[in-house]
Amino acid sequence: MAKYFLIFLVVFTSPILAQSTVSDDDALYIKDIHNATLTSNQAFDWLYHLSENIGGRLAGSVAAESAVEYTKSIMDTLGFTKVWKQPCEVVRWNRGEKEQVTVHIGKTFHELNALALGNSIGTSENGIYADVVEVKSLEEVDKLGREGVEGKIVFYNRPMDPTKIRTFNAYGGAVDQRVYGASKAAEYGGLASIVRSMTLAQDDVPHTGTLVYKEDQPKVPGLAISTNDANFLSAQLKEQPVKMYIKTSCTPGDTAQSYNVIGEIKGSEHPEKIILVGGHLDSWDVGGGAHDDGSGCVHALQVIQTLNEIGYRPRHTIRCVMFMNEENGLAGGRTYAEVANEKNEFHLAAIESDSGGFVPRSFSFDGHAENFNDFYAAVSKWTPLFESYGILFETGGSGADIGPLKNQKGLLAGLRTDSQKYFDYHHTDKDRIEAVNKRELQLGAAAMTSLVYLIDKYGLE
Amino acid sequence: MAKYFLIFLVVFTSPILAQSTVSDDDALYIKDIHNATLTSNQAFDWLYHLSENIGGRLAGSVAAESAVEYTKSIMDTLGFTKVWKQPCEVVRWNRGEKEQVTVHIGKTFHELNALALGNSIGTSENGIYADVVEVKSLEEVDKLGREGVEGKIVFYNRPMDPTKIRTFNAYGGAVDQRVYGASKAAEYGGLASIVRSMTLAQDDVPHTGTLVYKEDQPKVPGLAISTNDANFLSAQLKEQPVKMYIKTSCTPGDTAQSYNVIGEIKGSEHPEKIILVGGHLDSWDVGGGAHDDGSGCVHALQVIQTLNEIGYRPRHTIRCVMFMNEENGLAGGRTYAEVANEKNEFHLAAIESDSGGFVPRSFSFDGHAENFNDFYAAVSKWTPLFESYGILFETGGSGADIGPLKNQKGLLAGLRTDSQKYFDYHHTDKDRIEAVNKRELQLGAAAMTSLVYLIDKYGLE
Repeated sequence: MAKYFLIFLVVFTSPILAQSTVSDDDALYIKDIHNATLTSNQAFDWLYHLSENIGGRLAGSVAAESAVEYTKSIMDTLGFTKVWKQPCEVVRWNRGEKEQVTVHIGKTFHELNALALGNSIGTSENGIYADVVEVKSLEEVDKLGREGVEGKIVFYNRPMDPTKIRTFNAYGGAVDQRVYGASKAAEYGGLASIVRSMTLAQDDVPHTGTLVYKEDQPKVPGLAISTNDANFLSAQLKEQPVKMYIKTSCTPGDTAQSYNVIGEIKGSEHPEKIILVGGHLDSWDVGGGAHDDGSGCVHALQVIQTLNEIGYRPRHTIRCVMFMNEENGLAGGRTYAEVANEKNEFHLAAIESDSGGFVPRSFSFDGHAENFNDFYAAVSKWTPLFESYGILFETGGSGADIGPLKNQKGLLAGLRTDSQKYFDYHHTDKDRIEAVNKRELQLGAAAMTSLVYLIDKYGLE
Repeated sequence: MAKYFLIFLVVFTSPILAQSTVSDDDALYIKDIHNATLTSNQAFDWLYHLSENIGGRLAGSVAAESAVEYTKSIMDTLGFTKVWKQPCEVVRWNRGEKEQVTVHIGKTFHELNALALGNSIGTSENGIYADVVEVKSLEEVDKLGREGVEGKIVFYNRPMDPTKIRTFNAYGGAVDQRVYGASKAAEYGGLASIVRSMTLAQDDVPHTGTLVYKEDQPKVPGLAISTNDANFLSAQLKEQPVKMYIKTSCTPGDTAQSYNVIGEIKGSEHPEKIILVGGHLDSWDVGGGAHDDGSGCVHALQVIQTLNEIGYRPRHTIRCVMFMNEENGLAGGRTYAEVANEKNEFHLAAIESDSGGFVPRSFSFDGHAENFNDFYAAVSKWTPLFESYGILFETGGSGADIGPLKNQKGLLAGLRTDSQKYFDYHHTDKDRIEAVNKRELQLGAAAMTSLVYLIDKYGLE
């Protein structure tokens, strides 16, 4: 495209600000919020440190504790009324040594790109050596039964569905294999589970993530292999029996104290009503947790930075929360809600960013059945203000960490960024700063700040 | 984000298919179009070859001729009624040897990352060695006048405005420096122009692009330097005078025959009315022209592939056009319209993709003042069908190559993809296949196919 001038100046055909409850002033204020955010390097610089210098920060790890201290030190500079660390008990998991997964076909051995799944036990010192049986679902394991599974390694190979436009729906349609595959295999005497990585990309990158053991089943190891390796393995299994060797040294189970990191600006008119912005500070141990969820953390921090920058004085109490342990336990989110409930703190609204630092596309609103429709009607008046930023309002989920606040009957919201590339990086070594675009990251923070501003100004009446 | 299941299943609150003129069948058909496109590797594979094996393909170059033959060979497999090459005369430009740009400060020399601008003349064999004067606009050169400019190299350093949400608007607000800077410098005796690269990224990558010489001014060389180098140079100029050495060996000016590549499916009911899809086949000589505009070319080719895949038989004549020479002359677009007018061919609609292979965000519609409003009212009925794909309709520009068809009084449309990263790659060595995401590319093609389907089915009544 070589064209020179403002050919792209676009006239929106929907009437902007047709609603009576938002004013031209709001549009100008939201423009100011965007201007301040888009000319700040802060969010990206913070994310760089979190992702590249601190790196992968699984709850309970040294890196996670560094991330706690680092984000607290940022908060200390942001003019909060109060900054504190809220203790929460996390269950640690250690990957141990690099996973060994080798397939043995005739006289050849072929190494696979694999990662143990979070919460998985390790193999014995000698590893596991067994035949592989491929399935496309948990149900198929039930059908195979003990006869087809006992003594074998079960290979779950149902791909994420590329025809889902929102990739989170494709993830939701495949991830049961990763979460429950190991226990399902164990139910019929399977020795381990191997799952095709949860991604729409076709490459050599394995994706970790949580597995959940059923209490009534023996625990067997669970791992993920890359999509290229899954295709390779599947092709081989069509030709002949394949034996696989697995060795891992994961050590799950011990507990440690960690922290949510919280900053609070007391509201000038309604200090008893809290508007929360947050992301989760922990990530998987591989990669830098840049999109998941370093981006959400710096989005939330940038909200405060931007409100400071434009000199906004909130009427409600604003809290910025870095939640700990979303990835493998949700201890931070649960503890936060428990403490809030004990103290009779009311969250008028909680907004989480946990879909990556990509370009923002929508806010997804959720709440308690009792009053959600009223809240959604209230916020829907603001949609014209977000139109020129390409952001829609919709109903659906919000965020895992703020979910436990639902019973408070406030409004919950999740920032939704463009999902097309999310699972190219999710839970991998590739989730690093170079996968994040600074402007896209900034636009997400500006969108969150705009929503905070409107909720603070108008409430949810 | 560790959540397991369909938390992201989203309920759209706007009523889908509220309009009477679109049917549930259309929604299903458009879903089929997306399914077929999202499960095809073709667009990405074609783009890989165009970008990585053929590479940068400035009109009149050997690579451009390879691209003509390659896309014609693809068209030959796509079941067109007719495929042909339409001759057009292009003006060639050769960059020559690698540009030398060195700043001389006190006793130190510092090399800058630079690219000559398209259409620029080269320097003499000895190069140019002169003082640098920094300006922020063409008007500032007028103010400096001969006294401030004569015998100097003029350095244009007004950045693109990061607060513009659509980056094309930021580009539009800065690119006059690149296009007209050299002639403006020459007007007052300047020896050359150096322009800050047209990008919002802060890095070492220089961006080329066209300059236009004014006929009444002497021609002087024009180059772009990276944004990092522009900041460095500007900082140095605040401290002391800076001399610069420039040497280029560009050779503009000779003409060559090249081609648009055209494939046509005769319409079953309205063969005399044409619906055109296209992109431009040429690119700058640096990089692979992956986003600009290899993506647009493979979008257009994929439209045909997908229509074939789902067995759609068009009522109108469908043309797929690879336009030549958009970047530095528009010979292809102009020739195409001239020939069409001579032959009394009527284009009911023309859709161009030339904003990169990023995730599609909107169609921008344009047309002749006489009937555009009616057309836009007609297509606006289809907006609910694009909602779940995140695509809006708006009015504005369409595409440079199809612009000359405007006098035919058909409908013009441009596919608009997300613009945030476009100028990170635009006209650089970085515009290569690794900057393109396969799914995002596929979604753009599916959007174009859906629009073609609706125009073909309903016309523009």
